[in-house]
Amino acid sequence: MKVMALFGLVEYQDAPPEVRAVYDDIMATRKTTWINNFWKAIAPHPETLKRTWASLKQVMAPGALDPLTKEMIYVAVSVTNQCGYCIASHTAGARKAGMTPEMFEELMAVVTMANATNRMVNGYQVEIDEAFRGEWPS
Amino acid sequence: MKVMALFGLVEYQDAPPEVRAVYDDIMATRKTTWINNFWKAIAPHPETLKRTWASLKQVMAPGALDPLTKEMIYVAVSVTNQCGYCIASHTAGARKAGMTPEMFEELMAVVTMANATNRMVNGYQVEIDEAFRGEWPS
Amino acid sequence: MKVMALFGLVEYQDAPPEVRAVYDDIMATRKTTWINNFWKAIAPHPETLKRTWASLKQVMAPGALDPLTKEMIYVAVSVTNQCGYCIASHTAGARKAGMTPEMFEELMAVVTMANATNRMVNGYQVEIDEAFRGEWPS
Amino acid sequence: MKVMALFGLVEYQDAPPEVRAVYDDIMATRKTTWINNFWKAIAPHPETLKRTWASLKQVMAPGALDPLTKEMIYVAVSVTNQCGYCIASHTAGARKAGMTPEMFEELMAVVTMANATNRMVNGYQVEIDEAFRGEWPS
Amino acid sequence: MKVMALFGLVEYQDAPPEVRAVYDDIMATRKTTWINNFWKAIAPHPETLKRTWASLKQVMAPGALDPLTKEMIYVAVSVTNQCGYCIASHTAGARKAGMTPEMFEELMAVVTMANATNRMVNGYQVEIDEAFRGEWPS
Amino acid sequence: MKVMALFGLVEYQDAPPEVRAVYDDIMATRKTTWINNFWKAIAPHPETLKRTWASLKQVMAPGALDPLTKEMIYVAVSVTNQCGYCIASHTAGARKAGMTPEMFEELMAVVTMANATNRMVNGYQVEIDEAFRGEWPS
Repeated sequence: MKVMALFGLVEYQDAPPEVRAVYDDIMATRKTTWINNFWKAIAPHPETLKRTWASLKQVMAPGALDPLTKEMIYVAVSVTNQCGYCIASHTAGARKAGMTPEMFEELMAVVTMANATNRMVNGYQVEIDEAFRGEWPS
Repeated sequence: MKVMALFGLVEYQDAPPEVRAVYDDIMATRKTTWINNFWKAIAPHPETLKRTWASLKQVMAPGALDPLTKEMIYVAVSVTNQCGYCIASHTAGARKAGMTPEMFEELMAVVTMANATNRMVNGYQVEIDEAFRGEWPS
Repeated sequence: MKVMALFGLVEYQDAPPEVRAVYDDIMATRKTTWINNFWKAIAPHPETLKRTWASLKQVMAPGALDPLTKEMIYVAVSVTNQCGYCIASHTAGARKAGMTPEMFEELMAVVTMANATNRMVNGYQVEIDEAFRGEWPS
Repeated sequence: MKVMALFGLVEYQDAPPEVRAVYDDIMATRKTTWINNFWKAIAPHPETLKRTWASLKQVMAPGALDPLTKEMIYVAVSVTNQCGYCIASHTAGARKAGMTPEMFEELMAVVTMANATNRMVNGYQVEIDEAFRGEWPS
Repeated sequence: MKVMALFGLVEYQDAPPEVRAVYDDIMATRKTTWINNFWKAIAPHPETLKRTWASLKQVMAPGALDPLTKEMIYVAVSVTNQCGYCIASHTAGARKAGMTPEMFEELMAVVTMANATNRMVNGYQVEIDEAFRGEWPS
Repeated sequence: MKVMALFGLVEYQDAPPEVRAVYDDIMATRKTTWINNFWKAIAPHPETLKRTWASLKQVMAPGALDPLTKEMIYVAVSVTNQCGYCIASHTAGARKAGMTPEMFEELMAVVTMANATNRMVNGYQVEIDEAFRGEWPS
């Protein structure tokens, strides 16, 4: 069965040069030899492909936060939003960046705790403490 | 103006012993001398207070993930769910655990990127790659 | 300070007859003598007011489920969606329909548990059991 | 085809004693002879399994709310969050607890109405009525 | 394999007259000769079927907004909520109403941008400008 | 009272040149003489400010979709996500781009209808029709 995406998947051998350039950069940046479906699915729109990859590459690069932390934050958001594809792909990314089963277990525990207390706070109609309102530099 | 919560706020001096015991443990665990509104707001239901604090204490304790990473994951979920109280309180918690402005900036960048691509994936109807489906131990 | 809404609030004395007719039906149905802000805020669009009230009246009427159960379900959804107005108004509605503090406490416990496990299921990528797939009449 | 979960599924015959003890308690509590995938999927993390089951057992036990009402609230949250697994499993749970097709129809009507008006309230930027702000005991 | 829905799918030839009347109106309104699964899945509850179709027909009819704009708004909401069925069906509806691939690309870009900045605003804890608070007629 | 944001608001007169350059471009692009709080709130992080504005400017520029349609889609997403700031600012933006009260009324009707049926589809566990699965070019 063919893998589905709204506009189909653009494979490397069929891609125009501007798409191949992005694919090449993805593989070089990630040190892999394959491209996952997400990029092939948006490739029919090269401007979207270029803009999305440029943003993702910048955002996920090591900086004040290390790549593993960033991948785990990505998983936390994707789990909260219930995005199956994103959970699968970023859990794989986090594992590649060094996440152990114990780290995953704790990540999930924090995510579920946060999703729970986010609702308790609103259900009990709790106002924000003055102590939490101060600006950062103050 | 009185701070609002559905059942009011239970202050330490008015709290029954079982509530005071939780308050004492919160302050000892967090090395602070005050209790934020969330706990005072759910304290009219001591069973809920005890269960919630016991879970939170266990989940947020240092383990395979350090406390700063856990607080940032909490912020990521709370921002995704748009919970104002939780964003304010856990951003304060993350700062206390060592989050710098640069780390916050990158945290927000990952959270916004994840919220964006979560929707692109679904809008473009992308199926999960076989490579992402393998089980962890395989 | 004036209460805000995008188009202002349409008070009874200023309302055209078709709006007054809806207001009268709301007060008669709910056995009250006042109209809450939501209806006054959408009243500048009488068609929307009429359609929304007609649906709500039908949906919330006693049937296979009693009014208290319906109000608690409304609270559960509003808490999950983090809608402050809806939480406040339907918690008031549920109290009026007989919700006790103990019932509220259990309602919140189920809502937070569901919000938590909804994420665990997706994070652990659990497939649906065959036993849950059967159709109702089977 | 094998049923998927991130860490696979821990079957009873392969489970260590601490996992079997939870499985036994689930089956005894629910008066069934099988375990659904969710528990088998988190069982590779026995601490998570124990904590989650302990919370769920406590939260879903009969109390101020009956088991059927609790299961329907669980369905309401799961439908709002669009969690396929949770919808299927808790709809089955609610049926077992006595939900009729007529009750399900009304449950869905309330859930969809709440999801609709939650957005109208915010779109029309409606402020909370003073009458809804009073504390419970007042 | 049979297509699944909780109560099965009510086909035209098996439908009672009140359901057939709705099916006939759907096909006449949409100028098609088939009924999609959503309607067949809720048809076991004729009251729900009638109320839902009556609302949808009224809401999606051409008015101050044209049908294409309405279908694209439907897609925007469905993508934000991650509802796979709704994304597939309303993307098909928007295409039928004239959406081009270029329009879809821009629609997705706005949806992803909005989902991103919605979180930035909350994460940076930004208060609403006074200039945005004025009522519409002012 | 000072307007709050986590890092305060960077006013034009206090802004470094790279921030002023973005502010100037925002005002020129939007043909206004003021900057709303969102930009001032993220300006303490000039890289974030520049990246966000560059994306927003590109995404919201007239193209296959006109600016009014884009602003209404932005409102639809923000209402679905319950982001108060975004609803207020983009409703103002849509009004400036020509949205009439009648258009707003229909926009809200579609948004609420979509949020409602998104949940019905999942609650009734409806599978996607084969006819909706075909790829775009087919």
